[in-house]
Amino acid sequence: MADQRATNVTWHEGDITREHREKRLGHKGATLWFTGLSGSGKSTVAVELEGALSEMGVLSYRLDGDNVRLGINKNLGFSAEDRTENIRRIGEIAKLFVDTGVVALSSFISPYEADRDQVRALHEEAGMEFIEIYVDCSLEVAESRDPKGLYKKARAGEIKNFTGIDDPYEAPVKPEVHLHSDQQSLAEEVDTILALLRERGIITA
Amino acid sequence: MADQRATNVTWHEGDITREHREKRLGHKGATLWFTGLSGSGKSTVAVELEGALSEMGVLSYRLDGDNVRLGINKNLGFSAEDRTENIRRIGEIAKLFVDTGVVALSSFISPYEADRDQVRALHEEAGMEFIEIYVDCSLEVAESRDPKGLYKKARAGEIKNFTGIDDPYEAPVKPEVHLHSDQQSLAEEVDTILALLRERGIITA
Repeated sequence: MADQRATNVTWHEGDITREHREKRLGHKGATLWFTGLSGSGKSTVAVELEGALSEMGVLSYRLDGDNVRLGINKNLGFSAEDRTENIRRIGEIAKLFVDTGVVALSSFISPYEADRDQVRALHEEAGMEFIEIYVDCSLEVAESRDPKGLYKKARAGEIKNFTGIDDPYEAPVKPEVHLHSDQQSLAEEVDTILALLRERGIITA
Repeated sequence: MADQRATNVTWHEGDITREHREKRLGHKGATLWFTGLSGSGKSTVAVELEGALSEMGVLSYRLDGDNVRLGINKNLGFSAEDRTENIRRIGEIAKLFVDTGVVALSSFISPYEADRDQVRALHEEAGMEFIEIYVDCSLEVAESRDPKGLYKKARAGEIKNFTGIDDPYEAPVKPEVHLHSDQQSLAEEVDTILALLRERGIITA
């Protein structure tokens, strides 16, 4: 069938749009931007949400240190300048996913408000959904979890510019979702996010 | 339903894989890497293929100058070094799409063989499909088309490092698909690519 079609119709640039892809997928594209201290539980919530979305047939994709910091951003370090470029690139990649109709789950500390605001602006200028999710957690609790042993190294001076220790974390002022991972259950956190996605019309299930 | 599930099941990192997403979409992810001179017809074929894939229900996404050069790579120019970094980043982004289960259509001149080979290696190391599509066309024909008036500017010296004029184009040695846009119809080109996608088991329609 496709062979026959190709001989009869000519497509033009822009014929297939985000709306076509969203219709095909049955949901809208959106960027869910998780931000919080190391150990606050960003990835834990993102993974749990990914599972819930998958069961609902929603196509999502997690952007995290494993596939971004070790891939496209492997030529960036942790200076303020490199952190800014790191977040800028992730924001641009997330936009491409939204344009594809995918729910992008971005899970990075992203400590600077100006950087997050720039990613928000990039999305809003393009008429794209940007949902900032603050995974709030006291430094004490995050440090006690220390899943990768990074706080220990930062306290020992083996890692420099570590957020919360010798580099600032600027908490979101007006995030769309404010989670408290040291007080809420994982299920509560996921349900809160799903409710907002329904409210915004991003998912219908 | 999702609310109930979230209270009963806990997902772990890596639970939702590329295979899950490909099953959900009904096809595999792959990178189709179009390469050729400016004016060779890369975007024209990519747009036509996108239309054919969309009719078949295959989720594809085009990476091109409009959404990459003006977005994530807007801080890169056209020096040899910047071209290499441009292609490296595009290759890493394409990989993220393949991991999502999407057919990524990359449409850039990508003149240097070493750069394309590096993107191929990135994919193959990750067990991902990389299909190089050489959109072959004589410089004479490409220059006579000159859809953006770039050859004219390059000949006048207004644009430097222009591929085919004062910067080399290294033709692929063993591309998976070798099109001749100055001899084939658009329908023939698209059919050739679709046949390979079926042969590789990327699409089944």
